[in-house]
Amino acid sequence: MNRDNEFFSLAAQLVDAGRIIDGKGWVPATSGNFSARLNDGNIAITVSGKHKGLLQTSDIMLIDADGNSLDGKKPSAETMLHTALYKRFSDVRCILHPHSLNATLISKLFPAGCVLENYELLKAFNGIDTHESRVVIPVFANDQNIPRLAAKVDRYLDQHGAIYGYVIEGHGLYTWGNSVQETMRHLEALDYLFDCEIRLHGVKKI
Amino acid sequence: MNRDNEFFSLAAQLVDAGRIIDGKGWVPATSGNFSARLNDGNIAITVSGKHKGLLQTSDIMLIDADGNSLDGKKPSAETMLHTALYKRFSDVRCILHPHSLNATLISKLFPAGCVLENYELLKAFNGIDTHESRVVIPVFANDQNIPRLAAKVDRYLDQHGAIYGYVIEGHGLYTWGNSVQETMRHLEALDYLFDCEIRLHGVKKI
Amino acid sequence: MNRDNEFFSLAAQLVDAGRIIDGKGWVPATSGNFSARLNDGNIAITVSGKHKGLLQTSDIMLIDADGNSLDGKKPSAETMLHTALYKRFSDVRCILHPHSLNATLISKLFPAGCVLENYELLKAFNGIDTHESRVVIPVFANDQNIPRLAAKVDRYLDQHGAIYGYVIEGHGLYTWGNSVQETMRHLEALDYLFDCEIRLHGVKKI
Amino acid sequence: MNRDNEFFSLAAQLVDAGRIIDGKGWVPATSGNFSARLNDGNIAITVSGKHKGLLQTSDIMLIDADGNSLDGKKPSAETMLHTALYKRFSDVRCILHPHSLNATLISKLFPAGCVLENYELLKAFNGIDTHESRVVIPVFANDQNIPRLAAKVDRYLDQHGAIYGYVIEGHGLYTWGNSVQETMRHLEALDYLFDCEIRLHGVKKI
Repeated sequence: MNRDNEFFSLAAQLVDAGRIIDGKGWVPATSGNFSARLNDGNIAITVSGKHKGLLQTSDIMLIDADGNSLDGKKPSAETMLHTALYKRFSDVRCILHPHSLNATLISKLFPAGCVLENYELLKAFNGIDTHESRVVIPVFANDQNIPRLAAKVDRYLDQHGAIYGYVIEGHGLYTWGNSVQETMRHLEALDYLFDCEIRLHGVKKI
Repeated sequence: MNRDNEFFSLAAQLVDAGRIIDGKGWVPATSGNFSARLNDGNIAITVSGKHKGLLQTSDIMLIDADGNSLDGKKPSAETMLHTALYKRFSDVRCILHPHSLNATLISKLFPAGCVLENYELLKAFNGIDTHESRVVIPVFANDQNIPRLAAKVDRYLDQHGAIYGYVIEGHGLYTWGNSVQETMRHLEALDYLFDCEIRLHGVKKI
Repeated sequence: MNRDNEFFSLAAQLVDAGRIIDGKGWVPATSGNFSARLNDGNIAITVSGKHKGLLQTSDIMLIDADGNSLDGKKPSAETMLHTALYKRFSDVRCILHPHSLNATLISKLFPAGCVLENYELLKAFNGIDTHESRVVIPVFANDQNIPRLAAKVDRYLDQHGAIYGYVIEGHGLYTWGNSVQETMRHLEALDYLFDCEIRLHGVKKI
Repeated sequence: MNRDNEFFSLAAQLVDAGRIIDGKGWVPATSGNFSARLNDGNIAITVSGKHKGLLQTSDIMLIDADGNSLDGKKPSAETMLHTALYKRFSDVRCILHPHSLNATLISKLFPAGCVLENYELLKAFNGIDTHESRVVIPVFANDQNIPRLAAKVDRYLDQHGAIYGYVIEGHGLYTWGNSVQETMRHLEALDYLFDCEIRLHGVKKI
């Protein structure tokens, strides 16, 4: 597949993902941003300010590994959070960042991070084959200074190694995988598990 | 675009908005009303008594800036709440008034008004560029006397300046923007943020 | 319109209503039953045992005012609850009985009946023009003996006069109106108002 | 109907069931598995690792009564839970195993099993004709050792006789019936009744 075909294939997958994610109510207003990495290291990413449930392939732009626009379009303000993850993890090919209600609630209820244990659905994560696993999703304070926020994520990853996603407080979730399809699987699993923790949190406290 | 084309374009946008809003369950029964302002200052507004998820363009009528029918159809009983906002804010081009469950719950849980802080989604509002903002959505007591209710809203706006929307107790939300699209963005953001506040309210109290 | 055309028009409206009601999750499994009265006093009613979201017009049968099958099909076991309401209220032309979760929860949380006050959406009910109204929805104990249950409803109506609907404990809602459209409006309003009461009930108690 | 036609008919029914079940959010990521038994005793079952909302008939494979692949495809890791039920109950023709949130919550809130009583919707279960029935859905601890888990289910069934379904802790629901249609009815009823119990559990405790 030449680069153009690869770009349009990935753009179409991101458009489809947006429609499905919006159907679940996870990208209200024009929130969220999505990306996918090409074989040559450049990145297809949603442009700034579009409703993610109504994307067209022309709303997906091309940037290089450092986040520079390659087609004159304006990428999301949070582009550096994407490029930092792609630089760190060579096998990551897609990053999805929705603003699901559950991610925001998790960040307020579990500000020190969310521990997921003893769920069969943990097996949805690449490399996990038993519910007897422990997945930690860290929560970072929100920051409009994206380089500073990216550096904070980097320090966490330096200390803790690979994770399946992270939550920004009052903001949303970042998750990734080796394809759009795998990242969608991680996203569906995380939102479900967040929902479990939120629903059980209220009940346990009673 | 001549006036007829402009009217039909706005009517079509309001019909589409109604279908999307009903899909979210925010206009049960025949509740709610929507409007958009034309360049000449007249207003396209939903007629009284129709289900907002099943609108046709013939269910959108034309009124002047004072709320007088220009085509013999009967506008919503709450028309004056629309015209008052258009008179005050020259840049407002659309007003949406759904009866979402979250708006009604907010009015019962936060009768003194709802304060929204520290959410990334606040950036969905025109003019806000950081989560470190404070948006107040006032709650007004319900009143079948619409001139009296409009006067109460006017007094609040005289004292507090521009806001992004207000809630009427046990009734629903009014929100607006410089286009149907921007108003939909404000609406999706407000409902999401109301949902956060409601869900966290219950939990915080435990 | 001759009787056949009237029957098929009403049957089509009931099929459509079923699809919409199932879309909201209010008729799980094969629960619920719907009916509409013809000008000659006979009644179109759903046959027993079909999924209400997948109805075809052949799943709507014709009974007389006493509930006798006029076409050899088998009506719902709860047919007498329909015929009793049609006999009492000459202006009722449609009865909808879904099993919405909210109706079941209302019956468990408010076993003495649910009082709805100070909601704008009360104006969705025929004859109500202000939120300053009081609507009582009684709750009756469930009973597989339908004549006995119908008699209990009759006694309540003898004592209290017309109501907009009633709930059977752990079972579902009966509501009615002068057309399928009006009954759908009453149904959407009741489920919304039940949802408000349930959500606020939990919170008030905290 | 010859065996090929029967297989494709059942495969199409399972594909349809998957789409409906995914629409309700009960098979997040690639979770869940479904099967249906042919007249000759062989079993059509979903292959491993596919999203159940996006199944194609080629994602349904054929196994014998002992779980051996008859077409070279790889069945779900939980196949033995299906074959054990088919061996025990000669009238079971379909088994559905979704991972609905409600099933997972039930397993955490009612680890000793969930008792369903005094709901009209109990009549959705084959053989039940009154709400005055008592249905127990046992909860088993999760186990990646499927033969060991199947043996635990077997011991329970030896002691307690036929049931309508069981829940695996933090995992999901198994339910069955004499056709895909009846099993869908049992599934819709169970999820509704679980939802009732979860919602009332929180409230009762307050």
